Amino acid sequence: MILALAGGVGGARLAVGLASVVEPSGLTVVVNTGDDFEHLGLSISPDLDSVMYTMSGRHDNVQGWGVAGDSRRCLNALAELGGETWFQLGDLDLATHLQRTSRLRSGATLSEVTAELYAALGVKHRVVPMSDHRVRTYVQTDVGELAFQDYFVRHRCVPKFNGLRLDGIQTACPSPVFAGALKAPDLSGIIFCPSNPWLSISPICALRDVDTTIRHRKVKSVAVSPIIGGASVKGPLGKMMVERGLPATSVEIARHYQGLIDVLIIDERDAALQPEIEDLGIKAHVMPILMSNAERQIAVARAAVDLTRQS
Amino acid sequence: MILALAGGVGGARLAVGLASVVEPSGLTVVVNTGDDFEHLGLSISPDLDSVMYTMSGRHDNVQGWGVAGDSRRCLNALAELGGETWFQLGDLDLATHLQRTSRLRSGATLSEVTAELYAALGVKHRVVPMSDHRVRTYVQTDVGELAFQDYFVRHRCVPKFNGLRLDGIQTACPSPVFAGALKAPDLSGIIFCPSNPWLSISPICALRDVDTTIRHRKVKSVAVSPIIGGASVKGPLGKMMVERGLPATSVEIARHYQGLIDVLIIDERDAALQPEIEDLGIKAHVMPILMSNAERQIAVARAAVDLTRQS
Repeated sequence: MILALAGGVGGARLAVGLASVVEPSGLTVVVNTGDDFEHLGLSISPDLDSVMYTMSGRHDNVQGWGVAGDSRRCLNALAELGGETWFQLGDLDLATHLQRTSRLRSGATLSEVTAELYAALGVKHRVVPMSDHRVRTYVQTDVGELAFQDYFVRHRCVPKFNGLRLDGIQTACPSPVFAGALKAPDLSGIIFCPSNPWLSISPICALRDVDTTIRHRKVKSVAVSPIIGGASVKGPLGKMMVERGLPATSVEIARHYQGLIDVLIIDERDAALQPEIEDLGIKAHVMPILMSNAERQIAVARAAVDLTRQS
Repeated sequence: MILALAGGVGGARLAVGLASVVEPSGLTVVVNTGDDFEHLGLSISPDLDSVMYTMSGRHDNVQGWGVAGDSRRCLNALAELGGETWFQLGDLDLATHLQRTSRLRSGATLSEVTAELYAALGVKHRVVPMSDHRVRTYVQTDVGELAFQDYFVRHRCVPKFNGLRLDGIQTACPSPVFAGALKAPDLSGIIFCPSNPWLSISPICALRDVDTTIRHRKVKSVAVSPIIGGASVKGPLGKMMVERGLPATSVEIARHYQGLIDVLIIDERDAALQPEIEDLGIKAHVMPILMSNAERQIAVARAAVDLTRQS
């Protein structure tokens, strides 16, 4: 059984690939919930939704988030009422937030709601939140500490990134399925999706025992680099690395994941970095990793799965 | 200054008429909030919304509720997710509930939120909730006690009506503007809109000191009958009266309001009931009261206002 750790879009794309090369019973995708927030009384889980919409073929690939063909009738009416519209809520997307909020209010866990929503949209593979407890990512910047969505959406990642604070991480536990997968006798490999290692993956690894368990793994751990040719494929990763004084290269990704992974899949354009990465004791597997279409998603997924099987 | 007590649709129609014959400074409409409820995590105030949509020209007169030209994209997506869809939420209507919920969560009172929403939709006259405290109407029926929306929407008023329970009424106070209007030196008249006397008006009068204050009024109090020719103009009133062993006539409306009103405006079709009503010490004013269009709304409103001025 493959355990994949994922954030939003990058994670979602590899998850789709993994879902087409691995049986439903053979895959567990764990999704970051540090980006979750409450808005207009709604409980919103952006990464869980990006993965759900992508795996169910509903994701708006043009816009980069939300549901394809969504409308903004409610949002426009909300604007007329003087409501907050900085977070773009589509009419179809709203249904997901309403249903999640309603179920959470009635006492369901985020794991339960997530299973219900994914099943309703026909996703067969198992996708779970990293935790059923509340963890909130705060981004420390040159303009002060910002709640994640504040940094990401309102400020469009412009403020200088200084670090993260994961509110609630001390008391949060991995979700039941995630905790079970980490200890599962049939666990055959761990895959770090090409999501932002700081914003998306670090909250997952910061959960109780996760980092330690992965460092003491008995299976192969493979990461797909979120950096291609000195820039992040999507999002603020490249900018953040530079702001942290790190060159935005797959070598730094390897250094960041040292001890957590055995293999880093890097892009052809970064083939020259292979020796430097392998000097860190991490095998660098070179291939085209830009997952611009289903074919590429499947190719990268298959390579990642195969690499977990090589001794 | 005219103080009008209103429920949903019937109250909304007279409120529109009153708004066109009385200056904004000369009218305060108090709306029932006993029908308010929480659904999918949203705070919904059906009567406040019916009055708001009607006064701002947005009400869907064909459907009888909600916003004209609304769509159900979110509701249909919610159905796909297995969500509760018994309460029909339009995409535009949703914006109102989201904004109300969001503002209430941030600590605003229902009076404050209501003022903001009405102002945003361009309503100049003052419309306030009956209370900022939580009052919930429960309908006692032959199938047990039902929350109001459960009785009204889910069960379509089919169960036999035995009585009401107003949860929270003991500790609820009239909203600040309502309380102020009752004691205002410039209060010139009270108008009971043609809303359901039991479901819509009784929660307002059951609030602390309201019934007593109206009984000891120094101004004229006028009601417009919600019954025409032995049936309610809209809603379950006629059926409810019969189930309570009362003939569905304006005479019973007069009897119900005895001590609270000086005049009852009844329809031409019920002219024959005039003597019986006046035997109860209530003047019966006969005119066409079906408010099928703006002209009729204005005519009934003008008559009601004039009657508060006659000694």
